[in-house]
Amino acid sequence: MELEFVRWLTKRLPPHPRLRIGPGDDAALLELAAGEGVVVTADLLIDGVHFLASETALERIGHKCLAVNLSDLAAMAARPLAAVVSLALPRDGVSGIGPRETAAQLIEGMLPLCERLEVCIAGGDTNVHAGPLVVAVTALGESTPHGVLRRDGAKPGDALLVTGSLGGSLLGKHLDFTPRCEEALRLADSYTLHAGMDLSDGLSMDLPRLAAASGVGAVVEAAAIPMSDDAHEAAARSGRTPIDHALGDGEDFELLLAVVADEAERMLAEAPLACGLTRIGEVVAERGIFLQGAEGKRTPLEAAGYEHR
Amino acid sequence: MELEFVRWLTKRLPPHPRLRIGPGDDAALLELAAGEGVVVTADLLIDGVHFLASETALERIGHKCLAVNLSDLAAMAARPLAAVVSLALPRDGVSGIGPRETAAQLIEGMLPLCERLEVCIAGGDTNVHAGPLVVAVTALGESTPHGVLRRDGAKPGDALLVTGSLGGSLLGKHLDFTPRCEEALRLADSYTLHAGMDLSDGLSMDLPRLAAASGVGAVVEAAAIPMSDDAHEAAARSGRTPIDHALGDGEDFELLLAVVADEAERMLAEAPLACGLTRIGEVVAERGIFLQGAEGKRTPLEAAGYEHR
Repeated sequence: MELEFVRWLTKRLPPHPRLRIGPGDDAALLELAAGEGVVVTADLLIDGVHFLASETALERIGHKCLAVNLSDLAAMAARPLAAVVSLALPRDGVSGIGPRETAAQLIEGMLPLCERLEVCIAGGDTNVHAGPLVVAVTALGESTPHGVLRRDGAKPGDALLVTGSLGGSLLGKHLDFTPRCEEALRLADSYTLHAGMDLSDGLSMDLPRLAAASGVGAVVEAAAIPMSDDAHEAAARSGRTPIDHALGDGEDFELLLAVVADEAERMLAEAPLACGLTRIGEVVAERGIFLQGAEGKRTPLEAAGYEHR
Repeated sequence: MELEFVRWLTKRLPPHPRLRIGPGDDAALLELAAGEGVVVTADLLIDGVHFLASETALERIGHKCLAVNLSDLAAMAARPLAAVVSLALPRDGVSGIGPRETAAQLIEGMLPLCERLEVCIAGGDTNVHAGPLVVAVTALGESTPHGVLRRDGAKPGDALLVTGSLGGSLLGKHLDFTPRCEEALRLADSYTLHAGMDLSDGLSMDLPRLAAASGVGAVVEAAAIPMSDDAHEAAARSGRTPIDHALGDGEDFELLLAVVADEAERMLAEAPLACGLTRIGEVVAERGIFLQGAEGKRTPLEAAGYEHR
């Protein structure tokens, strides 16, 4: 990382109780809770593919690039700790902003979320090149005494739950969402969760992944899906139905959970999350993903999400 | 990460004793030794800046991208454990090779080094775009009971040592080097080290960084610098002197260490490293970096390395 940028960064970043050595040495040193493992995930986002720098403030882009990574830690019910940020910065700048200021604005956009979720920026790398803006974040968290939440633990009879509401993320949520880290930790702390993941490519594409990992099928009740206002707004614009958007739109970044039916009833009664929690269906032994209409008729759910590549 | 690539990866990667959950879930889970911290570093390399994909096999590029990261763990005397690999892949391929095969060849190039240093590939991300090949690696290691090796512990009177030999890396070593992870662990295990770093931008640029972090100066004895055969070869081609190349060329990826003088003598007598270990000078209280000639005359050492940006 360029020296002057490291100097700015070390001044700008607040101290963090787990970060023993931060940016400036050859590597960072992070302390874990006794007996816990490191949970690590990476997402690389590119101008023109995952965001449009010409239309979006760099702070919002920075926020998104961090948030999508922390969402993967939420999906594991891991406690987020740190992010490492590597940048390929366009030599000629982004929207008239030079490389170093581009890097600074991206980092500035990450800091409010860092503060909210007690995450530090432990290090990274900056490079200037002739190509587009590339933001590669690696997020590090730690497991908790409850273990991590995997995709492969769903059992027939489990209830399927989602946090928040789905659809229409492109109207703004895909940039400004808060990853469900606090929610995942609260649920893991109070309930037994069988399986979970975050919805990044749309329910109709992500649910089959959870089902496949667990070796099960699933039935989703169409009427139960919590549709966001943006799903309705998107439908009004696209001419498709709100449920099409709720099932098919990517980047909801909500949690999808499989929970023993009794436990799910208790969760729904106790309503522990401000963002809401909805039972959308159940896990079944028979392979395949089905959508159940009001009359009880089941039709195969077509995968219609957006697959990130 | 694209599903088919994850499938290939999970089949291709050998098991690793510390990797509890590998590629395929939302994040990976890595176990640390009891009581140790995570050491984390990232380097992002770009076609046209850090390597030339048109002239270099993708396996060699993959090796380099992993090796530069592991060299930073060596610089901290940390035990390497895992790498996370995020790729921006040119849509039209690299030298006639499509995106997925490009990713596979990069990973293949990393595996021999992974095996040698017992490092796993814990996860990552693949994306296709219109820009150049970008390889963003984050390396994770763990501290050892000896603690980590920082840049800021050098004391006046310490001997300055380097592993291996310096200069002319561009003739090939910059692609094919083995990071000094085993060497750093062996030295930390047997000797008390005050400070250390890896030489990535050239001794004349990196030594001032170690000195500045430690609040000291340094004197380098020109005649003591271990010059590589490639430093001589590079000098024959460039018309500059071999010592210019040994001082100024980047990407040596050797270790620079500051060690109490007595301890350094013991190290040199015991010669614990196959790659060699050379005393090149000493740490002094007076700020500034000096080159001492055969007659004992000291001249300020000009920073002539290549600063990675």
